Amino acid sequence: MSARLKLIVAYNGENFAGWQSQTNGNTIQDRLEVAFQRVCGKRVRVHGAGRTDSGVHALGQCAHIDLSDRKLPAARWLTALNAHLPVAIRVLRCRCVSQNFHARFSAQEKRYRYRIWNAPVLSPFENGRAWHIVAPLDFEAMSSAAQKLIGRHDFAHFAANRGKKVESTVRTLRSVKVKRIGDCISLDFEGDGFLYKMVRLLVGALMRIGTGDSSENELMDRLASREKSAPRLVAPAAGLFLVRVRY
Amino acid sequence: MSARLKLIVAYNGENFAGWQSQTNGNTIQDRLEVAFQRVCGKRVRVHGAGRTDSGVHALGQCAHIDLSDRKLPAARWLTALNAHLPVAIRVLRCRCVSQNFHARFSAQEKRYRYRIWNAPVLSPFENGRAWHIVAPLDFEAMSSAAQKLIGRHDFAHFAANRGKKVESTVRTLRSVKVKRIGDCISLDFEGDGFLYKMVRLLVGALMRIGTGDSSENELMDRLASREKSAPRLVAPAAGLFLVRVRY
Repeated sequence: MSARLKLIVAYNGENFAGWQSQTNGNTIQDRLEVAFQRVCGKRVRVHGAGRTDSGVHALGQCAHIDLSDRKLPAARWLTALNAHLPVAIRVLRCRCVSQNFHARFSAQEKRYRYRIWNAPVLSPFENGRAWHIVAPLDFEAMSSAAQKLIGRHDFAHFAANRGKKVESTVRTLRSVKVKRIGDCISLDFEGDGFLYKMVRLLVGALMRIGTGDSSENELMDRLASREKSAPRLVAPAAGLFLVRVRY
Repeated sequence: MSARLKLIVAYNGENFAGWQSQTNGNTIQDRLEVAFQRVCGKRVRVHGAGRTDSGVHALGQCAHIDLSDRKLPAARWLTALNAHLPVAIRVLRCRCVSQNFHARFSAQEKRYRYRIWNAPVLSPFENGRAWHIVAPLDFEAMSSAAQKLIGRHDFAHFAANRGKKVESTVRTLRSVKVKRIGDCISLDFEGDGFLYKMVRLLVGALMRIGTGDSSENELMDRLASREKSAPRLVAPAAGLFLVRVRY
């Protein structure tokens, strides 16, 4: 009897080449597929909710796989997979789901977090986990501008080209929450979908508002313009975390 | 003109052999001394507030050094030293102090934090930064027992032998704060001084109360007994952080 397994996976993306399988191998998907093969002796395909770039992290990426036989109960898969994965990749939860569930196509909403370390010196515990900005950031200005992004917009200006044609660049941002705890500013984006590098481009624009190099009005103009040729700042991958996927 | 510099240093101790200088070199003190030598061209001796063991971290270790000439202002030292240190060691603050200040002998109080990750799976962001305990811990029991440790006691039972005679094993614990945030239990110990491995031995005893393998009464008996031959559990180095030193 075949079974579809749903996995919740966390990973520290620092030393991996992103989610998606590559010929040279060192991706999260490749590592998961190798772990599955070691446990069940067969090649299986792991389907993720979405790709994450090299250096991007996940607190709750979602994936599914089809097993040709129900050899192990879901709880045993959790232990077995983690035993064959590097410690920087952990399966947090694992359960059997219906064949109607698809990690990518069933996703309703995603939440991303971006972390900025705003202090003269980067904490030694934040290497590869935050964007270090030395200049003091105007938290209120960033927070206020972030609220203006909420809603249904054409985010064409905040999308990078992945070499393939995207049907529509309209997305709905349901919430943007900006918090400051000590030296860390975190920005949580929740929405029905995100364009390629959209969060990092939005954070780049918000950071420039924080330093006073840009303004809320300029952000609104850019959002309205949908122009892609204007200079844009992409925040580095290290600060980005896929927090969760909702179905 | 000579100058004494006071440094506040943070380090991720994961890949270092502790604070104190060793012949094979890979310690925090060695790395700081190398950085100083590269900046000022002379060998200087770095004096720390206290040693930390291999794998132990610091958010605010304190150290001082004597410079034979006041070549650079304190703020410049900060930048210059960090440029010659690995990213896992950062000088957070640097200022000139009087010759009466001594990082070790002037210390009045220290705060240590111990972090336990209490969940079935260890987060990939917690490797080397927490003690992973799978069994559910009784937070209330641990927290209640921890309060009983506050005050002036002979902590002989909670001291490891460092091969040298300690004059007195009486220490005053001013506060113990136990918090649970998500899957992380943190225990903050503040006191006038700590015996060798004292925090890790106290955490080992509290953890056994959390799992139900020991009790508050047993902890009190052990504290009263001052016996060192009884079996004791040392919590691993990875969960320990020197938070700050007060002068």
